[in-house]
Order: sequence, then structure tokens, then C-alpha cells
Amino acid sequence: MSVTYPLGFRAAGMSAGLKPSGRPDLGLLVGDPGTTVAGLFTTNRVAAAPVHLSRARIAEGHGRAVIVNSGQANAATGGRGDADAHTVVSATAGALGVEIADVLACSTGVIGEPVHVEPLLAALPILAGALSPAGGHDFARAVMTTDTVDKQATADTDAFRVGGCAKGIGMIAPNLATMLVFVTTDAKVGRDHLQRLADEQLKPRFNALTVDACTSKNDTVLLFASGATPDASEVTPDVPAWDELAHAIGEVGESLARQLIADAEGVTHVLLVDIAGAASEHDARLVAKAVADSPLVKTAAFGGDPNPGRILQAVGSSGIDVDPAAIDIAIGGVRLVHGGTIPAGYFEDDALSSSARVAMKEPEIHIEVSLGEGPGRSRALGCDLSYEYVRINGEYTT
Amino acid sequence: MSVTYPLGFRAAGMSAGLKPSGRPDLGLLVGDPGTTVAGLFTTNRVAAAPVHLSRARIAEGHGRAVIVNSGQANAATGGRGDADAHTVVSATAGALGVEIADVLACSTGVIGEPVHVEPLLAALPILAGALSPAGGHDFARAVMTTDTVDKQATADTDAFRVGGCAKGIGMIAPNLATMLVFVTTDAKVGRDHLQRLADEQLKPRFNALTVDACTSKNDTVLLFASGATPDASEVTPDVPAWDELAHAIGEVGESLARQLIADAEGVTHVLLVDIAGAASEHDARLVAKAVADSPLVKTAAFGGDPNPGRILQAVGSSGIDVDPAAIDIAIGGVRLVHGGTIPAGYFEDDALSSSARVAMKEPEIHIEVSLGEGPGRSRALGCDLSYEYVRINGEYTT
Repeated sequence: MSVTYPLGFRAAGMSAGLKPSGRPDLGLLVGDPGTTVAGLFTTNRVAAAPVHLSRARIAEGHGRAVIVNSGQANAATGGRGDADAHTVVSATAGALGVEIADVLACSTGVIGEPVHVEPLLAALPILAGALSPAGGHDFARAVMTTDTVDKQATADTDAFRVGGCAKGIGMIAPNLATMLVFVTTDAKVGRDHLQRLADEQLKPRFNALTVDACTSKNDTVLLFASGATPDASEVTPDVPAWDELAHAIGEVGESLARQLIADAEGVTHVLLVDIAGAASEHDARLVAKAVADSPLVKTAAFGGDPNPGRILQAVGSSGIDVDPAAIDIAIGGVRLVHGGTIPAGYFEDDALSSSARVAMKEPEIHIEVSLGEGPGRSRALGCDLSYEYVRINGEYTT
Repeated sequence: MSVTYPLGFRAAGMSAGLKPSGRPDLGLLVGDPGTTVAGLFTTNRVAAAPVHLSRARIAEGHGRAVIVNSGQANAATGGRGDADAHTVVSATAGALGVEIADVLACSTGVIGEPVHVEPLLAALPILAGALSPAGGHDFARAVMTTDTVDKQATADTDAFRVGGCAKGIGMIAPNLATMLVFVTTDAKVGRDHLQRLADEQLKPRFNALTVDACTSKNDTVLLFASGATPDASEVTPDVPAWDELAHAIGEVGESLARQLIADAEGVTHVLLVDIAGAASEHDARLVAKAVADSPLVKTAAFGGDPNPGRILQAVGSSGIDVDPAAIDIAIGGVRLVHGGTIPAGYFEDDALSSSARVAMKEPEIHIEVSLGEGPGRSRALGCDLSYEYVRINGEYTT
């Protein structure tokens, strides 16, 4: 049920004819009156029209419904794109009988292609009529593009439910791979506190993801709280339920992040890169990304090559000041670099290289780097670079 | 003749048994007494032992010879690596009968593997005996690793000769792809002025190169001036010959840079990315690299897909503050983005997409981005991302 698992939410999804394939391409999620919302948006400077619209709505404290189309990204579409986004949310508000300000929008699909407004508007009454507390699955299917499976997750506390769904990962071919994440809870949470939960529990988890170091123009994470739980007292940081709720939201976020990376384009191995001992968390994050994004580390993961030199190279070129002599590196728990040095016999040592080679064949390859500088830690979730990635992104022609 | 084209240089290259393949793996270049030298070194924090040694020598004003081995990178080799580098330059100085401080070192090959010192020392007397003013070609061959062809260039002014050779590009499999560049001239140039020529004429050209955004631990560019030309008056910035010399050095640098990218691993198309209208040159460089390093742009180039959305995405995620509405993008002179907007009919406009598709099939794909912010310009030289890149880097196993 994902986004409709918590009380106070209805959802629907359908084929509106926006995608040439005829697959589901229009989704609608609506929270009961009083629902609050928090958002995280792409940092790409060239953001899509629906991102501008939704960000502004949330900044003004509005938004309890979201209309999502797949097929066209409504990015790089100029003034027409803004007008189209407004047309879509206005019509959605009309179909729902809510204020225009209550409706947010997300789009994902081909960059530069305007939203196919006409079939979308024609489908809206049908979509609104199909809204149901059991519609989470249809919604999750409708927002998919190149995803091979839908991604849904739920979690519970004693008092609340949390649900979510997600699609896409990376800016991927044929340019349809924006990441969209929707998380819901029936707890009652004020919007500033909800934003804090989004910042603390969801942001780090989705920022850790990297498929090809490319940020979509449309990436959006929305967290809705309906307050529809029977115990409707407000959850604030000073009540015991706060930590439970935070934990449940984090759990749903973590599950969706793992599902996203496991479905990354052409993935054959997931990379779990843990950096410890950095001067700061900021430094640790940059090093983690440098390792997870390195084409040489990614191709080594694809080939099953336990190549500590490539990891060292990536750490050294991350732009962070490191002491080479303090760096330790392990793959799958096998220590391959001690104090910045690869053991002289490594390339002849069958025992060590065999253990490392086994670790590199795991579906999830765990790379640990310790920098010996300070308390900063960070994790990046990446994937390997395969022939299939090149095929998906190279063979497609507009 | 490349590095020995200018007067006052002798070189040699041979197979010393450092590479399992038996190919040439040891090179020596020596300038006459009075030769000055300037250097550019990797910014990777985990620099190799020979980089530390050569950088220190040049900072102290020394160095007129360089011993280069391929096969082992002498990186991540700890204290033993430093000791090995000193052993090699000491022995080279002995074989040449020059001061130890006069000898620089470069290594390229497998990271973590110590230099095979014993066969190297055994070969040194033979190598020194083979030094010749006609040895430039042998030297250029000896420094190659995964290069498929040697890279050499020469240029002339009325008074001087300039020559150079280069090897490798990217940090490539099996970790042998350090970039090494050697440029020589018979002009007489003081070392500070020579460093200025290296900074102004060589640095931007080699910094523009990017195969996989990975900086080797061993990258080195050396510029030697022998002063052996018949007209031995010193070339300083206030004499007319300065500009001619600078131009000739730049010409050799440009030629070597083009030869390097044309031999990048798995390359099928070269990417020439020109950024104009940035707020500063610094900003322009970051945007140029973001476009040239984007896996999505690189796979689009491989697939021949004229995909302006991917270029826009890369510009927007470069970290530089840009005004989306001011961005113009052209591929091969065909304008595909006007004011941040892809023409609404682009995906149906056969004339426009056909022209763009033709431009994407060229061996050299010219991408021009105009940001409309200021006078900053920069160029990046990159290449596409092909199955062959994944094969070369993925199928190799230590």
C-alpha cells in the first residue's frame, strides 16, 4: 500500500496516454485536510518547472496533494513549461475541489518535451474518481519510467504508520530517470518539524545515492503528514514519540534508497562506500562520492577486480586534504591498504588477493576507507559501471 | 626526433625487463650542462614517490636529466618507494657522471608495485651508453604503457626548436595510464621564466584533458631548455623572441594533448567542449569539465545521440551559479538550446535533429555552451564512454 498505508491518504494511478508505450503515466496522491508537507528538491541550477512550482508552494506552507506525470520532464521548456505546470495543478485542484495552492506537481520524462497537457486534462476527472485508500500501488506504478520494478516501503511505530514509494535513480536514458520519492505518515506534525524530519531522516539517505554523479533537474522528495492517526496529539521534538517517528521515517527512506540503487541502470553490483576518520562529515561525504563515482572503481567493481590502487587514486583526487600515510582501505573486511601503502607482496599474495576477489564478487561490495584525520563519517551508495549502462545510455537515440 | 629535435639533448630507450611483456620500459633524457627545467605535477594528494623527488629537485633549481620507467608506478609503496626512487636516480647520476641533484625521475605502471630495481640498475650503463641526439623516438617508445601509438611533436621559431613527447591519458587499466609529458627547447631560458612558460603554455592544455575525471598519482609535465642554440642570448619576457618561443611551446603542447585524447582508452569520438560567457575562467573550466566528464554526455557521444538535455543537466549540476534562461547550446554549430529552452518541436523537427545527428557522428564532436554571464572562457578535451572503455577497465583482473 506504500503511500496509502498511513491513515488519511488516498491515491490513484492510470494510463493517460502521455507515454507512447501506453504504460501508467499519471498519479495523484491526496492527504486529508490539515495534512502538512515538507520537501527536498534538486540542487541542479537548471530546475524543471514543477520543481519551481512545488518549492514555492511548500515555502508558503501549502500543499496536501501532488499530481505526478511521467513521460515528459517539463524541463528546459521555458515560459511555456511554467504555464503548463500551472494549468495542470489548477485543473487538478478543480477536479479535487481544493484550493489551487494545495496542489504540488512532479514531472519525469524526456527533457525539453512539453507536458502533453490535453490528454492529461482529459484524464484528471477519471483519476480523481479513482482515488482510494488502497491506491498506493497504482500510484507507485504510474510514476515509474525506466524502473524495472516499483519501489515501496512501510514502517510502524506504536502509534503511527509510515509509508513511501520512489522511482528512478540517476539522470538516465532516455533521460527519464529523475528520482521522485513520496513518504507519508499519519502522525500529526507541524510543517517546520516535518521539514526537520525530512532534512534529518531523508536528505542524508537520498543524498548518499549516486549512479552517475548526475543530478536530475526534477529530483524531488516529498514528506506528507496527515495527522489522521486516532491519537492526534502533535508530535514535537520534546515528546517520546518523536524519536520513534523519526526512526520509522528513516527506515522507510533507507529501504527506498536501497531499492533505488538496486534497480540502477545496468547495475550488477551495489557499492557501499563507508568513509571514517575524516576531518568533518562534509569531507567524508566528498571522499565517499569521489570513490563511488570513480569510473575506475566502478569498472573494477564490474570486473570483480580488487584494485586498491584505484580506490586510493579516487581518495587522493577528491580535493580533500588527506595524509596519504594515514589511509587504510578494506574491501569486504579485507584490509588491502595500511598507512597508504599496498603490501609489497599484494600482487603475488594469493591468500590476500583471493579473499579480496571473493569480496568483489558479492552483490553488495563494501569498501571501507579510514583517513585518520578526525571524527567525520559518511556513506555513499553507488553501483558498478557495466556494458549494460553504456548500452542503455549510448544506444538510445532521440 | 621529438625531445631530441632541439639542440643540446640526448636520449635513449630500451627494454630493461621491468614489464612482463618485454616491451621497452626504461627511458633516459639528458640536457647539456646549463639546461634549465620547469615542472607541473599531479594534484592528487596521494602522489607517487618519484613525483615527490622531482618536485623537490625542481623547487631547489636542479634537474637536467630524467630517468623514466614504465611497468611499476612506485605509488602507494610507502618508505620503500622513496628509497627506491633515490636508489634509481643515484645510480643514474653515477652512470652519467653528473650530480645526483641533476637527475629527476618519473614512473608509470601498476600502483602498489615496487619498482623492479635490480634489472633497472643492471640496464643503466647500457642505457647511458646508448644516449644519442637521435634517441628521441626510442625514449618516446620506452615511456609508453597502454598507449597504442607514440605521441611526438615538434615546432620551430626563427631561432629555436621545440620538441616533445607524451604518453598515457586518464588513470587507466591496468592502472598504467599516468600522463607523462616531456617538452624540450634549445632556447636559453632562466628557470623562473621557464616555469612561467610551462604554466602559461602547457598547464592549460594538459589540464583541459579528461578521460575519466581521474587524476593519476604520477602525472608529470617537464619542460627543459638547453640554451644550446647558436644564438645563446637569454630569452626573457621583454624580448621579441619570447612570444615566438611561447607560441612554439604551446603548439607542441597542443599537438601532444590532441594526440593523447585521440588515443584515450576505448575512444571512438573526441569531445571538444567550449564554454563562453562564464563569470570567470575558473567557472568556465568547472562547467567545461562537468560537461566533458558527464557519463550521460559521454554515452550520448558514443551513441551519436544529439541530446541537449544531457548537456543542460551537466551545466546545471556543475556547482556554478548559472542563469538557466541565458544558456545557449550548440553541437557542431547547430544551435539546440536557446535561452535555456529546447525548441518545443525539437523531437519532431527532422531538419534540426538531422543536422545535430550528423554533427554527433563526427570523429571530433564540438559542443559549445554560452552562459551569458561574463567574459570567462575555457575548453575541455574529452572523449566518449564506450563498451571498449568498460572492457579495458572492467575485464582486467589483478
